[in-house]
Amino acid sequence: MDKAVARGHKRDRKTGLGMDIEALAEGVLAGERRALARAITLIESGRADHRDAATQLMARLNAADHGREAMRIGLSGTPGVGKSTFIEAFGMMLTARGEAVGVLAVDPSSARSGGSILGDKTRMERLSREPAAFIRPSPAQSHLGGVARRTREAIALLEAAGFGAVLVETVGVGQSETVVAEMTDLFVLLLAPAGGDELQGVKRGIMEMADILLINKADGELQAAATRTCSDYAGALRLLRKRPQDPEGFPKAMTVSAMEETGLARVWDEMTELARWRRESGHWERRRAEQARHWFEAEVREGLLARLGREPVRGAMATLARQVEAGEITAAIAADTLLREYLGG
Amino acid sequence: MDKAVARGHKRDRKTGLGMDIEALAEGVLAGERRALARAITLIESGRADHRDAATQLMARLNAADHGREAMRIGLSGTPGVGKSTFIEAFGMMLTARGEAVGVLAVDPSSARSGGSILGDKTRMERLSREPAAFIRPSPAQSHLGGVARRTREAIALLEAAGFGAVLVETVGVGQSETVVAEMTDLFVLLLAPAGGDELQGVKRGIMEMADILLINKADGELQAAATRTCSDYAGALRLLRKRPQDPEGFPKAMTVSAMEETGLARVWDEMTELARWRRESGHWERRRAEQARHWFEAEVREGLLARLGREPVRGAMATLARQVEAGEITAAIAADTLLREYLGG
Repeated sequence: MDKAVARGHKRDRKTGLGMDIEALAEGVLAGERRALARAITLIESGRADHRDAATQLMARLNAADHGREAMRIGLSGTPGVGKSTFIEAFGMMLTARGEAVGVLAVDPSSARSGGSILGDKTRMERLSREPAAFIRPSPAQSHLGGVARRTREAIALLEAAGFGAVLVETVGVGQSETVVAEMTDLFVLLLAPAGGDELQGVKRGIMEMADILLINKADGELQAAATRTCSDYAGALRLLRKRPQDPEGFPKAMTVSAMEETGLARVWDEMTELARWRRESGHWERRRAEQARHWFEAEVREGLLARLGREPVRGAMATLARQVEAGEITAAIAADTLLREYLGG
Repeated sequence: MDKAVARGHKRDRKTGLGMDIEALAEGVLAGERRALARAITLIESGRADHRDAATQLMARLNAADHGREAMRIGLSGTPGVGKSTFIEAFGMMLTARGEAVGVLAVDPSSARSGGSILGDKTRMERLSREPAAFIRPSPAQSHLGGVARRTREAIALLEAAGFGAVLVETVGVGQSETVVAEMTDLFVLLLAPAGGDELQGVKRGIMEMADILLINKADGELQAAATRTCSDYAGALRLLRKRPQDPEGFPKAMTVSAMEETGLARVWDEMTELARWRRESGHWERRRAEQARHWFEAEVREGLLARLGREPVRGAMATLARQVEAGEITAAIAADTLLREYLGG
C-alpha cells in the first residue's frame, strides 16, 4: 500500500495520490469509489506528509457539512461463530434494499499475523463483487491506537461518500471491542447456539456493551438450540440494569441464520427503530459528540507521547534509562531532566 | 497530612518539614524514625515545591550509595484470607529475629472509601507498637500511578533507613497487583483453605506472578483442608511453565497459620533462599534494573501527560473539545492545534 502511495506521489505533491485534496474531497462527496479508495489509502499511510494531507482532507469534508449519517455498527463474536458469513449475508440484504454498505475491521493482531481479520476479500466473495459495497481490511498496524484512528477516519470517509451502513468488525483481542464500541452507534455481538443449558463464556463487559445479541446458525439441526440460547440470553439481558440510552425491549437477543439468510431484515428493522428512538431522545447526537471529544483527547495524548519516539528525545531517553538502570541517577531526576531539557517543559 | 506539611513549611522553606534536605537525608540514613516519617510525608505531598524537595531527597539518598537492600515483598490476597493477621505475625517474627520491618500498602480505592487498606494501625496493634516496625497506610490518591510512585519512593526510603524487609500489601483492585509486582523482589499470594476439591478463583495472571503461595489458616479444624489445598496448588504450580528466574522448587506453595504463628520462619527462610539464588544467578540485579527503567519511563509519560492538566493547556483543550463536539472542527485538526500552539510542538 505504501508503494502505491509512493508511486502516486510522483504525480502530485499535495496528496501523493494523483489528485489534490480539493479534488479528492469532491470525489469522496460524489461517492466515487476510486476517490474513496485513494482517500482511505491516504489516511492509512504512516508518512508525515500523507498524515498532514489526510488531516486536511478530513477537515475539508467536515467543512462541507454534508449532513450524511451512516448507521455505524460495531460487530464482534468469537471465531467460528460465522462473522464473515453474517456480514456477507447482511450486506447483501442491505444492498438489495438500496443501501450502500461499508465493511471495515479493527484487528490489532493483524500486523503480527501478517494478514488481517478479513483475510482477503474471498471471504466475502459475493459482497465484494457488489457495486454498492466497499470492503476494507484492517490496516497493518501493531498499535491499537493507530488502527483506531485510521478506522475512525475511514468511517467518516464512507459516511461522507453517502454509505447508509458501516459495519466495523473486530475479533475482540484485548481492548479492541471497547475501541470499536467507542466509534460506532450500536454494538452487535454475534453468538453461536450453546451446547448445553449454560451461557457461553462471553467476555466480561462485552455483554454490557451490546445493543443487540444475535444467535447465529438458527438453521437445520441447530435451530432448536439457537432458539433456546436466544431465550437464555434474553433472560440474562433482563437482569442487567436498564441503560438510559435504551428504549423498551433493548438490549435485545434475536436469532438469525446467515447461511439461510433468515432474520436479517428484522435485524436491520430493529437497528433502524433503535436509531430512531435514540435520535428523538437526543442520545444519538450526545453519543456522537462524546465520541468526538474522546477521540480528540486520545489524539492529543497520542500526539504528545509520540514525541518520545522521535530524535533527539529517543536517544536521550535511552541514555538516561541506562544511567537509571545502573543506579547512577534516580528515575525521578532522570524523568525531570528529559522533560525539561528535551521536551520543552 | 497536608496540614502537617503546611505547618512544617513555616519553619523551613527548603523542605517544608522543619529540616533541610541534607539533614533529612542524614536522619533517614541513620535510621531515625522521625526523619523517616517526615520524609514519607514529604514524598506523599502533592505540592509542587514538596515534589521538588522529594526529588532532591531521593537523589541525595541515591548518591549516598548506601548499598542497603531490603527484601521487597509484594503481598496480595482476597479479603477475609487473613492478610493483616499474617502481616502482623510475620512482622513480629522478623523483628524478633532482629530485622526492621516496613509495611506499606497500594490501594487505589482508598481515596474513594476515604480510608485505606490498612484501616488504621489498630488492625496491627502489636506490630505497630514494635520499635523495629514501621507501618504506613496507602496514600490517599485516586490515581494508581500516583500511589505507585509514592510507594516506590517509600520503599527506597525504608531501604535507605536500613530496613531488612518491606512488605507491600495490595487488595488487588484493578491493576494494583501488577503495579506491586513491578516494585518488589518477590510476590506472595495469600490464600484460604478451599472448601471443596476445587482451586479458588484466583485472578488470571496473579498465579503466574506469584513466587510463593501461602495457604493461611492451617490450624484447628481447617488444618486438613489447608494441607489438601496446598497440595492442590503445588500440583497446579507444577503445570506452569518454568520461569528463568526460579530455582528448583519455585514457585512454591506452603501452609501457614498466622493465628497460631506457625510456618512463618520457614516462609522467611524460603524467601532468603530464593533471594540468594537470584542474586547469584544475576536475576535479582537484572530485575531491579528493569524495574528502575520501567519506573523512569512511567515517570516521563506521566510528566508529559500531566501538562494537559495545567493552564493554559487545560482551558484551551476544553474549548477545542467543545468545538469538536459541535462538529465545527475535526478531532485531528483540534489535536494538532493544541499540540502546536499550547504544547510546544
